[in-house]
Amino acid sequence: MTFQAAELLVQKFGGTSVGNPERIRAVAQRVAKTKLTTPNIVVVVSAMGDTTDELIRLAYQVSDSPTPREYDALISTGENVSAALLAMALNAQGIPAVSLTGPQAGIYTESTYSKARITKVDPARIWKELDLGHVVVVTGFQGINELNDVTTIGRGGSDTSAVVLAATLGAKECEIYTDVDGVYTTDPRVVPQAVKLASISYDEMLELAALGAKVLHPRSVECAKENRVRLHVRSSFTEATGTIVKEESEMEVNRPVTGATLMESEAIITIQNVQDRPGVAGHLFTQLANATINVDMIIQSSETSQENDITFTINESDLTAATLVTQEVARDIGAAGVKTDPLVAKVSIVGVGMISKPGIAAKMFKVLADHNINIKLISTSEIKISCAVARQDGRRALQLLHDAFELDQL
Amino acid sequence: MTFQAAELLVQKFGGTSVGNPERIRAVAQRVAKTKLTTPNIVVVVSAMGDTTDELIRLAYQVSDSPTPREYDALISTGENVSAALLAMALNAQGIPAVSLTGPQAGIYTESTYSKARITKVDPARIWKELDLGHVVVVTGFQGINELNDVTTIGRGGSDTSAVVLAATLGAKECEIYTDVDGVYTTDPRVVPQAVKLASISYDEMLELAALGAKVLHPRSVECAKENRVRLHVRSSFTEATGTIVKEESEMEVNRPVTGATLMESEAIITIQNVQDRPGVAGHLFTQLANATINVDMIIQSSETSQENDITFTINESDLTAATLVTQEVARDIGAAGVKTDPLVAKVSIVGVGMISKPGIAAKMFKVLADHNINIKLISTSEIKISCAVARQDGRRALQLLHDAFELDQL
Repeated sequence: MTFQAAELLVQKFGGTSVGNPERIRAVAQRVAKTKLTTPNIVVVVSAMGDTTDELIRLAYQVSDSPTPREYDALISTGENVSAALLAMALNAQGIPAVSLTGPQAGIYTESTYSKARITKVDPARIWKELDLGHVVVVTGFQGINELNDVTTIGRGGSDTSAVVLAATLGAKECEIYTDVDGVYTTDPRVVPQAVKLASISYDEMLELAALGAKVLHPRSVECAKENRVRLHVRSSFTEATGTIVKEESEMEVNRPVTGATLMESEAIITIQNVQDRPGVAGHLFTQLANATINVDMIIQSSETSQENDITFTINESDLTAATLVTQEVARDIGAAGVKTDPLVAKVSIVGVGMISKPGIAAKMFKVLADHNINIKLISTSEIKISCAVARQDGRRALQLLHDAFELDQL
Repeated sequence: MTFQAAELLVQKFGGTSVGNPERIRAVAQRVAKTKLTTPNIVVVVSAMGDTTDELIRLAYQVSDSPTPREYDALISTGENVSAALLAMALNAQGIPAVSLTGPQAGIYTESTYSKARITKVDPARIWKELDLGHVVVVTGFQGINELNDVTTIGRGGSDTSAVVLAATLGAKECEIYTDVDGVYTTDPRVVPQAVKLASISYDEMLELAALGAKVLHPRSVECAKENRVRLHVRSSFTEATGTIVKEESEMEVNRPVTGATLMESEAIITIQNVQDRPGVAGHLFTQLANATINVDMIIQSSETSQENDITFTINESDLTAATLVTQEVARDIGAAGVKTDPLVAKVSIVGVGMISKPGIAAKMFKVLADHNINIKLISTSEIKISCAVARQDGRRALQLLHDAFELDQL
């Protein structure tokens, strides 16, 4: 199997790439072309275009709270359709191909539905079909649990399916075909000077994905990092090379900042004059978690005084619910009050190089200050610095940082 | 298992019955009502409305000749969708239910695709779910072959799935829900006096189905006869009792004719003055079969002379092709020529009672003759008499026979 593994490629095509019969034929052409040089190809597909949404709509027309098991049985059919169609299109173009469902491909998951994690892959059937010279088209997003029932694996599902298969089969690369041609230094719709990155590390990609770069779901990047799977993010509409996601090499450390991101729908809540006693923050954030509100940046000010403020950011869609929860907690603990700021943006810079280059944070703050952009909150990780700013300043801040760190020169 | 079997019912709902979310909820209500008196229910569903046709259209948009294996993988998803939705709708109405695909339900087929015959059923999973108190919703039309691939079982598929499950599980009855309320003495759109039959024998139903009564596919009736499964054909839109299809009882033999049918798109071909030597008819009908033309009635006239005519009926849609084949054969064997009659109808009467009642055929011919309807061809079986007539006489002939045999009095 080692011999095969060395020459095996996994190609994943998203819903837009297989959105209609013409596009499916175009995908088949691309796979056929790859087959000329790569003997073993496994293709992973998402459902066509809006199919999954249509199936979800049907589910809610027969039930207010669809049974999770049946919901998965229902929505997984979208991938069955696109996989069978792509296999047909390949056969029609003279490339022998078979489609396999998640269960047929041996993708085993936890028994929970709708967000089951993949627990193991038994690739026997895939190898058998590859040995017969077939291109193997596998349905993304689905697997089988120990009850012999179909499960779906949740957000970022098909990318994750592709990465897991690439890891199991020892693929030389996992190509992720999408409707953009790679990973950019920032959103080109906001900053026209944004450039496509030739490569990026897993950790940088994880931060960018978490900060709103939609090209890859963080879960699939984590899975690729964990299993050392080289990802190639590229467009299904052009032949151009995209962006390679892999372990950072030494040379790359010379680049302190790799990308910049903007999230424009943030809001800030501050709970004022909290008595500085143990357990207050724990109580607040437990209550927020119980209300399924995701909290992002958290600041607790004034370590020295007896009273302090706790400030945190949330998505603006959670503002009403989060304010109510926070007001209750404020009453419980006798805080002075709750203030909210509904119009916030978060601008971030990401780069593995910043670990070894002091002064990156200072430079970021100075650039913003020099242009009268007030920083409301700061949060950092080893390879990321985020600042919350007034929403009206967000796009300008992103452009300034992109210029200052010369991201257009990468 | 014997105890369970005695209280088990199979209900099959066709594509119109589950055509949209409202109808699926209505089907769930009906199943819920049945559940009040019947502990074990297995429901078999077809795909929603035109789903299968839409999937077939997609297939031909990616391939001129879709791979059979992938074609089956594709079109079987229609039943997966309706089964999952019905199970959800049942759960929403407080009736615990699970959907099972053909493979999950243990429906094994031959390895051929698109018209695979069911070879065996392993009902272990169905019994397990019934034991848990679940209504079990099974996808019709599909199974699994020894390669572990999904197959579809061809025309009349879901009815046949239901009958096979009823036989395997020892169901007391197999209810076939459709958009008409039972089997009629003849087509009520042609003969307003047509009446719904309370019951009909398998053999009569087989003849009626073969003669164009579309309510049941002949294959499912054959399967029911073979396995002694009592069928109940009824409407999914009313509560009325429909028609029971079962072994004839003695009492029924008093009814010489049970139904009458009309097929209006027949055509006749005659090959004239054929030398009476062995093998001529065999040669002709082999050539027609090779051109996939179905021949219905066949008459070879004049046993005594050295030359004779061979006359046969076909569907009018095959007339051009069949004429060409017949002309070639005529040249090969030196026949005088080929005549065609494109405007023919076939009127038939069916009844197990006619075996023991002489004079039924004579009465049929006399009724037609008395009303100046010329009989072009006659064909009979033990329980059926068919006459080819001019197409313009077809509907009048059907009405006359329905009156003469007092079918409105059943």
